[in-house]
Amino acid sequence: MKVSIAGATSYTGRELISILLNHPAVKIVHLGGRREERPEISRIFPALAGRCELRVGGLRPEDAPEKPDVTFFALPHGISQKYVPSYLDAGIRCIDFSGDYRLKDLDAYSRYYGTHENPQNLGRAVYGIPELFRKQIRNAELVANPGCYPTSVLLALAPLVGGGHILPDSIIIDAKSGVSGRGNALKTGSLYCECNENLTAYAIGTHRHVPEMEQGLDFLGATGAKVIFVPHLVPMDRGMLSTIYVELTASADTKKLRKIFSDYYSHELFIRIMRPGEQPRTKDVMNTNFCDLAIEAAGNRKAIITSAIDNLTRGAASQAVQNMNIATGIDEKTGLT
Amino acid sequence: MKVSIAGATSYTGRELISILLNHPAVKIVHLGGRREERPEISRIFPALAGRCELRVGGLRPEDAPEKPDVTFFALPHGISQKYVPSYLDAGIRCIDFSGDYRLKDLDAYSRYYGTHENPQNLGRAVYGIPELFRKQIRNAELVANPGCYPTSVLLALAPLVGGGHILPDSIIIDAKSGVSGRGNALKTGSLYCECNENLTAYAIGTHRHVPEMEQGLDFLGATGAKVIFVPHLVPMDRGMLSTIYVELTASADTKKLRKIFSDYYSHELFIRIMRPGEQPRTKDVMNTNFCDLAIEAAGNRKAIITSAIDNLTRGAASQAVQNMNIATGIDEKTGLT
Amino acid sequence: MKVSIAGATSYTGRELISILLNHPAVKIVHLGGRREERPEISRIFPALAGRCELRVGGLRPEDAPEKPDVTFFALPHGISQKYVPSYLDAGIRCIDFSGDYRLKDLDAYSRYYGTHENPQNLGRAVYGIPELFRKQIRNAELVANPGCYPTSVLLALAPLVGGGHILPDSIIIDAKSGVSGRGNALKTGSLYCECNENLTAYAIGTHRHVPEMEQGLDFLGATGAKVIFVPHLVPMDRGMLSTIYVELTASADTKKLRKIFSDYYSHELFIRIMRPGEQPRTKDVMNTNFCDLAIEAAGNRKAIITSAIDNLTRGAASQAVQNMNIATGIDEKTGLT
Amino acid sequence: MKVSIAGATSYTGRELISILLNHPAVKIVHLGGRREERPEISRIFPALAGRCELRVGGLRPEDAPEKPDVTFFALPHGISQKYVPSYLDAGIRCIDFSGDYRLKDLDAYSRYYGTHENPQNLGRAVYGIPELFRKQIRNAELVANPGCYPTSVLLALAPLVGGGHILPDSIIIDAKSGVSGRGNALKTGSLYCECNENLTAYAIGTHRHVPEMEQGLDFLGATGAKVIFVPHLVPMDRGMLSTIYVELTASADTKKLRKIFSDYYSHELFIRIMRPGEQPRTKDVMNTNFCDLAIEAAGNRKAIITSAIDNLTRGAASQAVQNMNIATGIDEKTGLT
Repeated sequence: MKVSIAGATSYTGRELISILLNHPAVKIVHLGGRREERPEISRIFPALAGRCELRVGGLRPEDAPEKPDVTFFALPHGISQKYVPSYLDAGIRCIDFSGDYRLKDLDAYSRYYGTHENPQNLGRAVYGIPELFRKQIRNAELVANPGCYPTSVLLALAPLVGGGHILPDSIIIDAKSGVSGRGNALKTGSLYCECNENLTAYAIGTHRHVPEMEQGLDFLGATGAKVIFVPHLVPMDRGMLSTIYVELTASADTKKLRKIFSDYYSHELFIRIMRPGEQPRTKDVMNTNFCDLAIEAAGNRKAIITSAIDNLTRGAASQAVQNMNIATGIDEKTGLT
Repeated sequence: MKVSIAGATSYTGRELISILLNHPAVKIVHLGGRREERPEISRIFPALAGRCELRVGGLRPEDAPEKPDVTFFALPHGISQKYVPSYLDAGIRCIDFSGDYRLKDLDAYSRYYGTHENPQNLGRAVYGIPELFRKQIRNAELVANPGCYPTSVLLALAPLVGGGHILPDSIIIDAKSGVSGRGNALKTGSLYCECNENLTAYAIGTHRHVPEMEQGLDFLGATGAKVIFVPHLVPMDRGMLSTIYVELTASADTKKLRKIFSDYYSHELFIRIMRPGEQPRTKDVMNTNFCDLAIEAAGNRKAIITSAIDNLTRGAASQAVQNMNIATGIDEKTGLT
Repeated sequence: MKVSIAGATSYTGRELISILLNHPAVKIVHLGGRREERPEISRIFPALAGRCELRVGGLRPEDAPEKPDVTFFALPHGISQKYVPSYLDAGIRCIDFSGDYRLKDLDAYSRYYGTHENPQNLGRAVYGIPELFRKQIRNAELVANPGCYPTSVLLALAPLVGGGHILPDSIIIDAKSGVSGRGNALKTGSLYCECNENLTAYAIGTHRHVPEMEQGLDFLGATGAKVIFVPHLVPMDRGMLSTIYVELTASADTKKLRKIFSDYYSHELFIRIMRPGEQPRTKDVMNTNFCDLAIEAAGNRKAIITSAIDNLTRGAASQAVQNMNIATGIDEKTGLT
Repeated sequence: MKVSIAGATSYTGRELISILLNHPAVKIVHLGGRREERPEISRIFPALAGRCELRVGGLRPEDAPEKPDVTFFALPHGISQKYVPSYLDAGIRCIDFSGDYRLKDLDAYSRYYGTHENPQNLGRAVYGIPELFRKQIRNAELVANPGCYPTSVLLALAPLVGGGHILPDSIIIDAKSGVSGRGNALKTGSLYCECNENLTAYAIGTHRHVPEMEQGLDFLGATGAKVIFVPHLVPMDRGMLSTIYVELTASADTKKLRKIFSDYYSHELFIRIMRPGEQPRTKDVMNTNFCDLAIEAAGNRKAIITSAIDNLTRGAASQAVQNMNIATGIDEKTGLT
């Protein structure tokens, strides 16, 4: 399978290259970027020296020396939508990392992101959390790869939401992310001396992943769910932990709740339910496609769910490869273990 | 004023020494520890070389070369209670960092800590958060210096609780602490390679600070308050951020809520209310006695409070000095700015 | 190929398990440890949950359910030598991570490590830096896997030493290591709050890797070489950078020196020579078997070599697998890319 | 004493403000910056909220509401020289943090920095390492506050250089700095995800501190000294460790060398000589004006000196205050302990 990456010079682009270099069914035929010059990718990411000799070229389908079967878009929102249509027209399967094709509701998109230039392809896009929407992802031409926060949250809530176990307006999400979630753009808040030995909440009530989570909950059956979401920036490269507080529709102890999770994900290789007394640690999922989950009953009909992923792999690049595997009909875990 | 420290070889002991060395009204007359040998304190904490020439001696009042006016106990719970009585008997004012004298309810103590050997002094102890219990701290002979989590949480909740603005059983506390909160005991979970680049929740439903927070809320007027409390360990030396979710008794927007906070703490030097749009950052309170607070309205009659302190200073050593200043009648901010 | 690991509960053991799980020619048949109980390995390293279901059993050859073809010893020095002989007697190929079989000079061993209980196997051991001693490693029954510092240093010096380009008594090595080099034993100096935001030199003039480096230089032709070696502890999990200062036997500019390196390693997949103006960064070799090298001429017939490896992979586990591949005659890079 | 700061929005500016706020003889009358708007300083550095209410105004002497007695310039090189002359003309004592007035040799300045616009004041400038050049600093009108690397290196070499104990062309300096040394300008190399868990050498043979160190050695008596200098970037906020390798003019053991250091600095409060077997740790000098030093004999007439400072305080802000104290005739340690 021939693949290309549009937006190869982002951190998620770099992760994706690393994963695809080890994928036995894939050949990377092209890397695209937004720069004028055409540097070797190893000039930008020296870690790739001796592993990938490609240069970074243009972003259009015709910039690739060979037509890819699949193209990943690791571009910012607003930019993906400028390029995706021509790839779809050329019959190239698209997997987009940005927010551009995630929201079905164009109004919600406008409120959080601005004007959409390619609304006609929204209906074609499949929201790609494999364990939750596997059937829809099969043969999808356009996969909207989810945001990192929504991935960690929806995987954590799906077992309870599907069974009607929680009140849909009771969900409080206290999420914590490593700094790579900010990308490699030059911002004061991304400087080492601003992030190191520091901890802060940000974007309370305004984060773009809120409508995405609420839509995802709706997909899972929690119609009209509203979440309170507070993300935090934690001094580490990668890793994301979401601690989620919910009200249950009926009393349940920890043992029963854990069983709901174990049953729901009993056939899933990449979801690990913690043993009693254990909590997910972001370091245990680092560089992997795993999502580690724990659940504890608390107080009066409440529960606390903790969910750990690596924001760059399960939160972006490895989940995208899992989506590619499913969409193209190859073994889902290929290149991911 | 002559002071001594029992438990000088802990991280909080070290912080306390540093602060007291710069306190203009204080002379440190003795350092006590639990070791057999009598090392210079600078052997244990080389940062103190050239600043403090004392050796670490015994823990009993009679081990000090001069009788102190005030003794700080930076000892673990269960140990403080073995030494405090003889100091009180000798007429020495005691400020205890452990959990031994914080809980008025002996049953709660037993459930979370074990048997108490000195219950007769519980009634004498004053719970020492200066901004909330200043009057009681004046002239107190025994101050129970609060835990770091309860300090950050009670300062955050006091403005709403006092005015009856929140439902006392709605409180969810998602707290994050730097690693120094674990102390310098040798445990696998405190190793650099276990904590660095890692993030995890711990002690869900079992943390000893839960009854302390609930008692503090009761002191503030929220009778019978129950909290859900999830602490997390964050890869940084020091700093604590509590993100607190509450249900309001009446609708209020962010502006109104912020005014409640500003009014409540209008005369407090060490409490800073963030400006609109700003969030507390632990780095901004590092090495200080400040508590930085922000509040945001959220959804339907809910609010989110964020509270940042340095767990070693405001969460232990500098708050203890503030308590000493108040108890002994000197200017409260002496040595703390 | 069946392999087992004696000492699976160390950090290098964990790295080795991770690598071997992805090695297409290998099946792990046994994990041995020094503990009484027999925990699942995922209890000790939760990252391995869902990836490795083995329990940690005994250290003797007969403790394995199937006889391994190769056993790795990730045990401390002094312990490996107690077990290796019985494995050799059973015809099992041994790859030892400790210092026990590295030094040919028993006196040097005694001075730096203490009494050796198995000197008779010293002659049988091959010192395993693949790029430098590949011929000897082929078919070796006992490979002494090198220390992390000597690996980074000898790979850096080999091109100059072999050609007689440097004065053998001029070598100054200023090396810096991440904290995982200290292992997971409980020591105050390994605590997060001792290592984080801190930097220090240690073991000046006494480090056990000194005789190993000098022996390695002797193997490469620098008879009687003496090095000055100052290791430093750097606040990061993994990564090692050695900055090496040498005097040249004849004037040479940077371009010429770089060519010596490029030529020397022209056929080596795992050695990368930096481009002009670039310096190795430990992050670029993290989790890999690469050694990144740069060289600069300096002043009057001097040169500065910088060498970056990951101390846990190239400095231990992945180099051991490379040695296994060579010793057993399979493609050297199998499982390492 | 009235002071102002030109360049208050840099990290060293922030440090300086913090120190001066606690200086009993000082009132900050003005903060100057290079921005158009006039923000409160606490908008830029929230840590200063409640501690400093000043706004950031212009850089010229007339921008201050009151004429300062002393002005600190925490501006980049090339910018200081545009403003210093008018301050000198106005009779204001100047302490400059940049490289603009450090080098006496205009050619050296040009080679490393570019054209100098104010060479006529070079002769007037005093190079301000207090322990080495105290006499010259007294009453100085213009103090060139040294670079962080030269400070750590010259304090380390002074005891040996002054006594003629080392060969002046044998000096090798392997220095390591925390990231704050890079300042808060937006550069890819200063991003958290580029620095964290990473270690690299940089600017080999080209660093601007080389001529400054060589000039300093010349001041101390080592005429024509040439150094080899390799700086490294270490993942920590602040702290600098220089490991220095020298050849001695005569044999000396560690004890004798340590005595030379102890004698040389016997009356210096801010220089601490490590005890036998101890090594300086950057964490022990963090936020202080201390320089911690150790020396070990090595091999054949060689020695290894290690020198730790905090790059933001002793490497910039607190040393500047020490210089101010000396220049203005007040107790040298005022505000620094």
